Amino acid sequence: MRAELHTLSALDARAAILEGRLSSERLVQACLERIGDDPLRAWAQLEPEWALAQAREMDHIRKSGKATGALHGVPVGIKDIVDTRDLPTECGSAAFAGRQPSSDAEIVNRLREAGAVILGKTKTTELAFVHPTDTLNPHDTARSPGGSSSGSAAAVAAGHVPLAIGSQTGGSVIRPASYCGLFGFKPTRGMLSRTGVLQTSATLDHLGTFARSLEDLALLSQSIASFDPRDTSSLARPRPDLLGGARAAVPVEPDIAFFEFPFHDQLAPDAREGLEAVIDVLGDRVTRLPVSASLSGLIDVHLTIHEYEFCQHLREVIDTHGDQLSDSLKTVIERGRGISQTQYEDAQAVRESAEAFCAKHFNDFDAILAPAATGEAPLRASGGTGDPIFCRIWSLTGLPALTLPVLVGENNLPIGVQLIGGREEDDRLLRTAAWVQATLQSAEE
Amino acid sequence: MRAELHTLSALDARAAILEGRLSSERLVQACLERIGDDPLRAWAQLEPEWALAQAREMDHIRKSGKATGALHGVPVGIKDIVDTRDLPTECGSAAFAGRQPSSDAEIVNRLREAGAVILGKTKTTELAFVHPTDTLNPHDTARSPGGSSSGSAAAVAAGHVPLAIGSQTGGSVIRPASYCGLFGFKPTRGMLSRTGVLQTSATLDHLGTFARSLEDLALLSQSIASFDPRDTSSLARPRPDLLGGARAAVPVEPDIAFFEFPFHDQLAPDAREGLEAVIDVLGDRVTRLPVSASLSGLIDVHLTIHEYEFCQHLREVIDTHGDQLSDSLKTVIERGRGISQTQYEDAQAVRESAEAFCAKHFNDFDAILAPAATGEAPLRASGGTGDPIFCRIWSLTGLPALTLPVLVGENNLPIGVQLIGGREEDDRLLRTAAWVQATLQSAEE
Repeated sequence: MRAELHTLSALDARAAILEGRLSSERLVQACLERIGDDPLRAWAQLEPEWALAQAREMDHIRKSGKATGALHGVPVGIKDIVDTRDLPTECGSAAFAGRQPSSDAEIVNRLREAGAVILGKTKTTELAFVHPTDTLNPHDTARSPGGSSSGSAAAVAAGHVPLAIGSQTGGSVIRPASYCGLFGFKPTRGMLSRTGVLQTSATLDHLGTFARSLEDLALLSQSIASFDPRDTSSLARPRPDLLGGARAAVPVEPDIAFFEFPFHDQLAPDAREGLEAVIDVLGDRVTRLPVSASLSGLIDVHLTIHEYEFCQHLREVIDTHGDQLSDSLKTVIERGRGISQTQYEDAQAVRESAEAFCAKHFNDFDAILAPAATGEAPLRASGGTGDPIFCRIWSLTGLPALTLPVLVGENNLPIGVQLIGGREEDDRLLRTAAWVQATLQSAEE
Repeated sequence: MRAELHTLSALDARAAILEGRLSSERLVQACLERIGDDPLRAWAQLEPEWALAQAREMDHIRKSGKATGALHGVPVGIKDIVDTRDLPTECGSAAFAGRQPSSDAEIVNRLREAGAVILGKTKTTELAFVHPTDTLNPHDTARSPGGSSSGSAAAVAAGHVPLAIGSQTGGSVIRPASYCGLFGFKPTRGMLSRTGVLQTSATLDHLGTFARSLEDLALLSQSIASFDPRDTSSLARPRPDLLGGARAAVPVEPDIAFFEFPFHDQLAPDAREGLEAVIDVLGDRVTRLPVSASLSGLIDVHLTIHEYEFCQHLREVIDTHGDQLSDSLKTVIERGRGISQTQYEDAQAVRESAEAFCAKHFNDFDAILAPAATGEAPLRASGGTGDPIFCRIWSLTGLPALTLPVLVGENNLPIGVQLIGGREEDDRLLRTAAWVQATLQSAEE
């Protein structure tokens, strides 16, 4: 069994741990061996002894007959913009080098309550923005794993951990998941607490999750979802049963909308073909809808809010550590500083009306189908982490979005297909996604 | 159905709400009607419109198909030492008159996430200590409901709410539950977060719960249990499945220990007889164990820590609002100030070794059986809220303790029987308690 421990799903690993067939320590050891000296450069902070000590504690709790959790003994990677009391949190920036938070982020508390083992911190692009890490894509090391959650995506895809936490302000979960052949999920804004996470845009920042199966994705997301009034976007009410959603049969075949945005011309031919093939298989469950200019204009609204708020929230870092920032980030900052308060307030007003529009839309449809990225992962030599254009509108509107790794590009690299759900209907989105996945699978057979 | 809505259990109420047979608004309205103008004086803060607005929101969430919680639409009373952002929190003291917290206590956040409706704040004795409220015992209005969680116990017993939150530093949950004929539970220290709750003793303060059935007690306790590092006693690991515990069959008949403490001579004759009858029914499942002087001496250790820490934590209130404190509290303060730091440190050392002793003990036994109180509720004319003597040791050692309303005294008033479990084995304690309750019930038939 040992040789394949690193390929176990989180659900299978937990079951084996609870039944005494596997110890958390052995699983964590296997993950650490799989990482080795981290040739993929996925990890920003890794303290093997610290991870093993947590694993032994979870094993001890189980053996003593005490309560076990939904992620009992299961290792999780965490993007290095999420504060951890026991490991530095450097946010991918020299400006934060050696920064040691005094307390854990709220989602780390939730992971502790679920019995998870924090394996380590995964690499993030500089301040979770544009400047890439040196992380390699496990499917092709000449390519980028995508960003900004580069390390989380690479680590899960490479079998370093079954689960990882990322974040998305533009397309930083959905895009790297697509490039790395993973399931990626950005729950509804307000489901997961952002307390203790680097703030780059109060309006647009979301936490998200990576896994190698839809059920694992649901399990992790559900385990860390909580109401936390310290995050003003946090929803003061019950959370949906996500694992139940991923496992539920659809009551009737779902209705799926597809918008042909003008920027779809940026899709690579293989991605375009793959998407059309998906639409063909889903047949009359998919309705093609016209796109108004105001809808596609939301791309720019997103950019305005993102860049304006980035400059506001990180003003102190920009002012005092400007020399430690990359040139690509400096360009963004310059642009962000050029946005007036009126332009920003106008953008916020448009965002609010867009959210109202989306709320109405989901009366008629179970999900929106969309590309997850422009195509296969970009070459690292291109200098970037790929374009988040297909995610921006859904980050702007705070809707739950996930990607399924169902396509293969011309270089035999994975390409995801994105599904977007109604606000706070994350369980319904997972149910629809499981149906889409099963439908595509049976069409292939 | 309406006439009896106030008698519904929380589990039945939630099921009816989720199935659309009952609205939370109608349930809350029935509770408010039951309270009327509160002749029992159970409530410190009650804003009917605020409670109804929460109920309507929970109804709206259910109807819209969004996620529902474990306490969806179920009203809960909260002791007025637990901070609420929307209602004053006066801690039963003129020194806190009109005090309006700016945020909710952590357990209020957990109640929100569970979908509960906060009905209002229940009366507490002065600073959760000795000086009584004017609250009446619903079983006999000439008698005290007990303290310090006086209003919570009276409200649940009177059918004002199916559930309430209290706190226990000495015997402030178990004792009033016994006097009011309720199920009362003080989970293991560290299960429930005390963030945002009046601190009277960092070592001894516990939150606790009241209900009219064991399953309701488990449901409420489970819904509010969480890891919260802001409370330094909080356990950074998974919580037990309490409702599962209350519903589980015992794998074998449990072993129960009974200590004949010297202070059992304070038991009223009817309470003594009732307790012996319980021991008779349980037969050879109960083992009578000798009590060492050091074990019964823990009563004084508890008192030392309680009074010393009370004076430390509330120094500012004592210094600046001394004239607003009752004479009975002033007596306690005078005594507490006479305790030296060395006496306090010695007491803490004894507490630690007592906890180690208890940890060992529960290898042999499933639970300890003990009185919950000296007998029936005391007359209000006596000026007190009854003696917490039978609870002190279990508050000191941080063990989970609950009381079952299984006895009736000579005045036809309820008397509880206490069961104490092993540290962090709250689910096992509930399982044992369900067995004890069923065994006593079938003996009666």
